[in-house]
Amino acid sequence: MGSLDSNTHEDHTSTTPFKPLDPEEFRSQAHQVVDFIADYYKNIETYPVLSQVQPGYLHTRIPQTAPHHPEPLHAILRDIETHIVPGMTHWLSPSFFAYFPATVSTAGFLGEMLCSCFNIVGFNWLASPAATELEMIVMDWLANMLKLPTTFLFSGSGGGVIQNTTTDAVLVTLIAARDRILESIGANYMSKLVVYGSDQTHSMFTKACKVAGIDPRNIRLIPTTIDTGFSLSPFSLSKVIEADVAAGLVPLYLCATIGTTSTTAVDPIQPLADVAARYGMWVHVDAAYGGSACICPEFRHYFHGIEGVDSLSFSPHKWLLSYLDCCCLWVKNRDLLVKALSNNPEYLRNQPSESNSVVDFKDWQVGTGRKFKSIRLWLILRSHGTANLQAHIRSDIQMAKMFEGLVRSDPRFEIVVRRRFALVCFRLNPDKCSGPEYTNLTNRKLLEWVNSTGRVYMTHTVVGGLYILRFVVGATLTEERHVVAAWKLVKEGADALLKSK
Amino acid sequence: MGSLDSNTHEDHTSTTPFKPLDPEEFRSQAHQVVDFIADYYKNIETYPVLSQVQPGYLHTRIPQTAPHHPEPLHAILRDIETHIVPGMTHWLSPSFFAYFPATVSTAGFLGEMLCSCFNIVGFNWLASPAATELEMIVMDWLANMLKLPTTFLFSGSGGGVIQNTTTDAVLVTLIAARDRILESIGANYMSKLVVYGSDQTHSMFTKACKVAGIDPRNIRLIPTTIDTGFSLSPFSLSKVIEADVAAGLVPLYLCATIGTTSTTAVDPIQPLADVAARYGMWVHVDAAYGGSACICPEFRHYFHGIEGVDSLSFSPHKWLLSYLDCCCLWVKNRDLLVKALSNNPEYLRNQPSESNSVVDFKDWQVGTGRKFKSIRLWLILRSHGTANLQAHIRSDIQMAKMFEGLVRSDPRFEIVVRRRFALVCFRLNPDKCSGPEYTNLTNRKLLEWVNSTGRVYMTHTVVGGLYILRFVVGATLTEERHVVAAWKLVKEGADALLKSK
Repeated sequence: MGSLDSNTHEDHTSTTPFKPLDPEEFRSQAHQVVDFIADYYKNIETYPVLSQVQPGYLHTRIPQTAPHHPEPLHAILRDIETHIVPGMTHWLSPSFFAYFPATVSTAGFLGEMLCSCFNIVGFNWLASPAATELEMIVMDWLANMLKLPTTFLFSGSGGGVIQNTTTDAVLVTLIAARDRILESIGANYMSKLVVYGSDQTHSMFTKACKVAGIDPRNIRLIPTTIDTGFSLSPFSLSKVIEADVAAGLVPLYLCATIGTTSTTAVDPIQPLADVAARYGMWVHVDAAYGGSACICPEFRHYFHGIEGVDSLSFSPHKWLLSYLDCCCLWVKNRDLLVKALSNNPEYLRNQPSESNSVVDFKDWQVGTGRKFKSIRLWLILRSHGTANLQAHIRSDIQMAKMFEGLVRSDPRFEIVVRRRFALVCFRLNPDKCSGPEYTNLTNRKLLEWVNSTGRVYMTHTVVGGLYILRFVVGATLTEERHVVAAWKLVKEGADALLKSK
Repeated sequence: MGSLDSNTHEDHTSTTPFKPLDPEEFRSQAHQVVDFIADYYKNIETYPVLSQVQPGYLHTRIPQTAPHHPEPLHAILRDIETHIVPGMTHWLSPSFFAYFPATVSTAGFLGEMLCSCFNIVGFNWLASPAATELEMIVMDWLANMLKLPTTFLFSGSGGGVIQNTTTDAVLVTLIAARDRILESIGANYMSKLVVYGSDQTHSMFTKACKVAGIDPRNIRLIPTTIDTGFSLSPFSLSKVIEADVAAGLVPLYLCATIGTTSTTAVDPIQPLADVAARYGMWVHVDAAYGGSACICPEFRHYFHGIEGVDSLSFSPHKWLLSYLDCCCLWVKNRDLLVKALSNNPEYLRNQPSESNSVVDFKDWQVGTGRKFKSIRLWLILRSHGTANLQAHIRSDIQMAKMFEGLVRSDPRFEIVVRRRFALVCFRLNPDKCSGPEYTNLTNRKLLEWVNSTGRVYMTHTVVGGLYILRFVVGATLTEERHVVAAWKLVKEGADALLKSK
């Protein structure tokens, strides 16, 4: 935008050109917004955690068309406070214990500001060398923190790349696996390809497989049981694969999980990879949640056997203080990924790419454009250091342990599944005089009661027919006192429910 | 993170708990970064536009592992200035005329700050009602600005959703189309599905089709010619489809483009949609670049016939002052999208979703998690108003026209393709004594010379065998003087080249 323009902010000042990025106006307005945000973080405990609005609430509060003329920042910020904040579920509230929390940090925010600032579209090396090279370095840093085998590093045959979400990580590796096998057996075998996970694998897996054209009838979600902590049994996997092979199908891809969404179950990587190896399958490890914990030596054993898999991903936006979205993917054989996903239109051709001396990350992902996300991770790792990041993981787990202890101290409750990370799966004890459905209903009512207070937000799951309350410690601002208050509230709800009965 | 933690920023202050998001520390550090960014924007003209570093430059400047202990912000900002900035291609430089620029604005930055601030993971309505409802409203606002038929609005059978990139927009609509047809003819026809674009369709189209499992042999990129301005001929399309149908194949999807990447060619929507309608195909319009211009009445005619298509997308990050990434997609039949992409795991089940009274945007995209991107668009639309956004488009086009005039005034150059938007396609005239290859080589040398100065960055394309220089006006800070200076530099390069010859 430049000086040719005669349209203006206000009709009566028609000589001022429209300058959407005046550095001094930027400075002044961005400072205002920084204060708005710092105040939001300061006051976040005063808001109901789960929004209490009804569907369609915003429709009547906002005009039906965009304004023709500019509106001032203070009016917009006022509207955010009046109309948007009440309709938000406050994910950063210290009393948010739902889903898996999305963790943040000052360093992550600053990194995101810098990422936006430069607004680099780093599809290939030349489009901004620093973006690509910093990503390679930071992904190697993280790989070292996780003690990944060197084959997953750029110095080996592999490398790491930042994707948006786990779905993208699964999708791109699935396509690399799919194209590798179709190249050898022929495209006509597409409908014969079979993929494997467990009934605890995240729902994104099925979706990614459908997107990639895998016949929905060939997606195997192998049942797990409470006896084995809902982890995938290598024996069951082996049986299912054998039956598929006998039926003339072709085993393609296994998605194992470290820290499932429902209960943070951990699939045993090494024996599963051994089974998959017998059939030449691609093994991906989805460690979206659990991976962050593996930067601590005492949790690294969950990665045991990782050298036998083809790819793994974890999401720092879940538990490593990054803002959304950031999913780190490593592959052992980068050539397979590039072969499946590269394209080379004339308008992007350039000498460094053609000399094969550089990495072009557009060939490691589905989309073309990409942000400078590595700068955010770089800030997080440098501002905190591995020591504090490990401490952060341990502190969350310590608080979850404390909550677990509180639950155990009340005989009306039970812990349903063994706690591994910072998720506690619990429920009101079954009423021996009533059936399991009644127990499920009672727990559902308890959750509704707790969430309706707006004082905490927790979610549920159902596994093995049991309705379970999930309590995840992980929101960045959570302290011991919030966990204690949450437990008091749960007890209060139980008192009210059991008394009314 | 809370008070249980004994690890610390510094070994010697072991009583301070680790607090990754202290509101006052946030305030102070974010203010520092705002000033850093405002200064960067102020000084941006002093940096070489295209980075002049060599592959691997950063490897030797940065430690090979993450630090164990925290490092202070000032050290990180100093490293960014010393090591990162020299390796960046400055996309926001006013002398960036390459690819399609990525436009920005103060309002967009503030919107992105607020999006990060709340860090909502809006996979479904309940996870944060305001995020979903604001997205629906803002997408309707934009649809109105583009004068889309009401069928594309939420009040009709359709609706809009923010995707990351055009690839995502094409991928999700392709899958909706694919699953619709396979449901009626059977999954075994997967290998018979055929998709159509032109040889000017963006390379993401082929990639999205491959990702979705379309047999690469069934991707038709129909040739275009300079005589028709590289737009897709409905007659050619019709012929190709007829041949496919005769061969027993099934026409599935057409991707038409408004503003191709190489030359901003425009495919004729209405006659193409008419052809596609005869075969029951899905028609998508990729208006990634050209769509923004259609908010101006004088360019709206490019959308003529849009009521006949199934979906369209455009990317405000390209030309509507948004930062990365933001691609707006509308569909005419939202049920088809949801049917193909919905999933319903227990841990996300909730009463509003099950009552069908709300929109869950996870069912409109490939991934599960999603950011609160609508707040950024809302800030852009409100802070600027449609009047200024139209003025911004017109100003860029006016500057491109001026550049075109300068090129025409020098008989050594020619305009190769008709200018429609803010891209000028030009080259040094063919040397009548030498062949076309020599002309191409000369233009390539001219481009290399210009870019090596670091004073501007332009890119090239090759269409119809012609090597063409692309000059796109669009970087937010570009003013008339930068365009004039760029032209002077191009002439200087031509002088040097032709003299040396």
